[in-house]
Amino acid sequence: MADLQINRRLIMTPGPTLVDPRVSQAMSNQIWGQFDPDFTDIMDQTMALIRKSFSTNNRFSFPIDGSSRAGLEAVIGSIVEPGDDVLIPIIGRFGDLAVELAQRAGGNVHTIETDWGQVLDQDQIIAEIKRLKPKVVAMVHGETSTGRLQPLDRIGKAVRQIGGFLVVDCVASYMGTPVLVDDWQIDAAVGGAQKCLSVPAGITPITFNDRFAEAINQRKRVERGVRSAEDADQEAFITSNYLDLTQLQDYWSPRRLNHHTEATVSVYGLNMGLQLALEEGLENRYARHLRIHQALNAGLTALGLHIFNEGDHEMPMVTCVEIPASLGDGEAFKAMLLKEFGVEISSSFGSLHGKIWRIGTMGYVVEKTNMVNFIALLAAALLTAGVNVDTKAGLAAFNQVYSD
Amino acid sequence: MADLQINRRLIMTPGPTLVDPRVSQAMSNQIWGQFDPDFTDIMDQTMALIRKSFSTNNRFSFPIDGSSRAGLEAVIGSIVEPGDDVLIPIIGRFGDLAVELAQRAGGNVHTIETDWGQVLDQDQIIAEIKRLKPKVVAMVHGETSTGRLQPLDRIGKAVRQIGGFLVVDCVASYMGTPVLVDDWQIDAAVGGAQKCLSVPAGITPITFNDRFAEAINQRKRVERGVRSAEDADQEAFITSNYLDLTQLQDYWSPRRLNHHTEATVSVYGLNMGLQLALEEGLENRYARHLRIHQALNAGLTALGLHIFNEGDHEMPMVTCVEIPASLGDGEAFKAMLLKEFGVEISSSFGSLHGKIWRIGTMGYVVEKTNMVNFIALLAAALLTAGVNVDTKAGLAAFNQVYSD
Repeated sequence: MADLQINRRLIMTPGPTLVDPRVSQAMSNQIWGQFDPDFTDIMDQTMALIRKSFSTNNRFSFPIDGSSRAGLEAVIGSIVEPGDDVLIPIIGRFGDLAVELAQRAGGNVHTIETDWGQVLDQDQIIAEIKRLKPKVVAMVHGETSTGRLQPLDRIGKAVRQIGGFLVVDCVASYMGTPVLVDDWQIDAAVGGAQKCLSVPAGITPITFNDRFAEAINQRKRVERGVRSAEDADQEAFITSNYLDLTQLQDYWSPRRLNHHTEATVSVYGLNMGLQLALEEGLENRYARHLRIHQALNAGLTALGLHIFNEGDHEMPMVTCVEIPASLGDGEAFKAMLLKEFGVEISSSFGSLHGKIWRIGTMGYVVEKTNMVNFIALLAAALLTAGVNVDTKAGLAAFNQVYSD
Repeated sequence: MADLQINRRLIMTPGPTLVDPRVSQAMSNQIWGQFDPDFTDIMDQTMALIRKSFSTNNRFSFPIDGSSRAGLEAVIGSIVEPGDDVLIPIIGRFGDLAVELAQRAGGNVHTIETDWGQVLDQDQIIAEIKRLKPKVVAMVHGETSTGRLQPLDRIGKAVRQIGGFLVVDCVASYMGTPVLVDDWQIDAAVGGAQKCLSVPAGITPITFNDRFAEAINQRKRVERGVRSAEDADQEAFITSNYLDLTQLQDYWSPRRLNHHTEATVSVYGLNMGLQLALEEGLENRYARHLRIHQALNAGLTALGLHIFNEGDHEMPMVTCVEIPASLGDGEAFKAMLLKEFGVEISSSFGSLHGKIWRIGTMGYVVEKTNMVNFIALLAAALLTAGVNVDTKAGLAAFNQVYSD
């Protein structure tokens, strides 16, 4: 039998990110049965941690057992019924994903778009909300494909005024920059495990409020096999069973309605990741991400690289760097950086593919020594590839901004 | 910060089951990026292991990132279109789940049912297939709710004769008793990680053949954002994106089409669990489950308990025991057994709830010392609860059958 041989990597992509070893330790524990009271205690504790992480009091704050898009599909597929108007402001590839999910749910999708690398003006979005009066507005907070952070603190109020629901994809921004669910009047938010939380992919924290719960419960269909007399049935049920939030909320509540088998060790990992984040303090964590981002931008610029749309609503956990012209679309260099140096960065999608690299500074990896390593290794790889960069200047600029 | 304090348990339920520590060790490794060539090598290796585990040559043999019902929903939701006739033989609660999933996919569901605790005659099912000519027949192989193993080796041939597709839920039987996908002409099969494979829940191995792939690819819709010119779009698309097998098969193929972020450590765990099972040898593994099942039945009977429908198509990894009359519905005893002795068994569903306990003998836990522990502890708990059992006789009977 072959042991898995997992070689060392410095993962500097916008996810999945290196896992905090304390999370891996938590996940190496033996499992408990899913209805074991000691395990349901951990489930309840995890819900409390998720609430804090989203700065919300929503009782329905629990994880979905799947990757982030499973969380997005659970939220969008539960609230969007066939024929519902859905407004989706698009600033990159993950806006496209929201469109896709809303269309698969049968939604009548309307979009507002802007050039990739820009964000949309909130007033423009609000005007469209007032004009269209959609049932659902679905937005991406941190658009990793372009590295932009979409302002949305005023959207929730406008959506509530027309009686709609605001759903926000916070997968990449979550735990790296403020996501204030209650203050911003977000009705349902989806976070990410494998981004700034440094927990392995496979589990996704979500939260939704009581008015959202009331709306989706109009479609509630408890499944055949565990349905009881008091469970109404109706026609407009949610298409997915696995991602049906109305059943999942019963599983994650004192009713503990039998549904899927919970991914025990993923819950251990999420629980530990959230404990570590909250022990650090959310404000400290956000400040750490911002400080490293600013220092990295300075360091890469001093190396001789050019930051894409620097200063224009950048995500503090993604740095977009223009690919030097001599390296073509940058793919061969990216592969060489991984193969020879063990350092992984990302390309992008659509119109930005071949134009920018995306460097993720998310979660556990975001500290000074890793960044010094990264700049030095990237510089060495660029020099090897014939790109003239100034290693010493890059490191000095990073250290100066970091120390300020 | 509080460490997770995971107390010792002897989990004797039909899942989730105790995890093989070598699987936990594999899962404690650091992650790799999802397109890292070293990780895609592990993905390919895992596909090869899944093929062997299902005794199939199907190239499309890969895991779904979710619990077993996610795998079932992926298969049923991808093949069943609105209005399709679906035939579902029901022998217990997981037949109900198949009905639920087929209905949510829009299927026109027909059922054949029998009393819980029985199996259906294959000739009866085949006659109904010939009469109804359904597009899809969905069956449960190991029905854990009743402990029955449904014979189905002749169904595939009949389904193929009418041009339909046979989908089988092998979640509980997989890796504990033969599941011969190619020999039995099963078109799509779903296994389980957290049952006889002793891998944590959260990932589900599936397999499907080329004719199944051809059928679902009629509905293929590559999502907005990664769609290219050669990707046709059409109306009858699969409702789920996360569980869309046509996109997942592209992700698990050389095209590596961007989809979800793979649950890296779950893949490590599945890979290691499958390596361990194949190293043991499938025939040895099946024999081990059967031997322990027979010895446990003898031991429990000699204690003074009564096996439910003994000898009637029992699953070799689930023992159903009638609850002694003096213990009422058995729930208080079951809770006491867990709280005081750290031993977990299961109740059942529907008409069998309060009538039988279900004892799982699945995977890693299935060896002599664990069973001796279990019989002795169960006997002690029963004596404590005022049920007169003969501990010595129970252990002797177990050991005698085990040694034969």
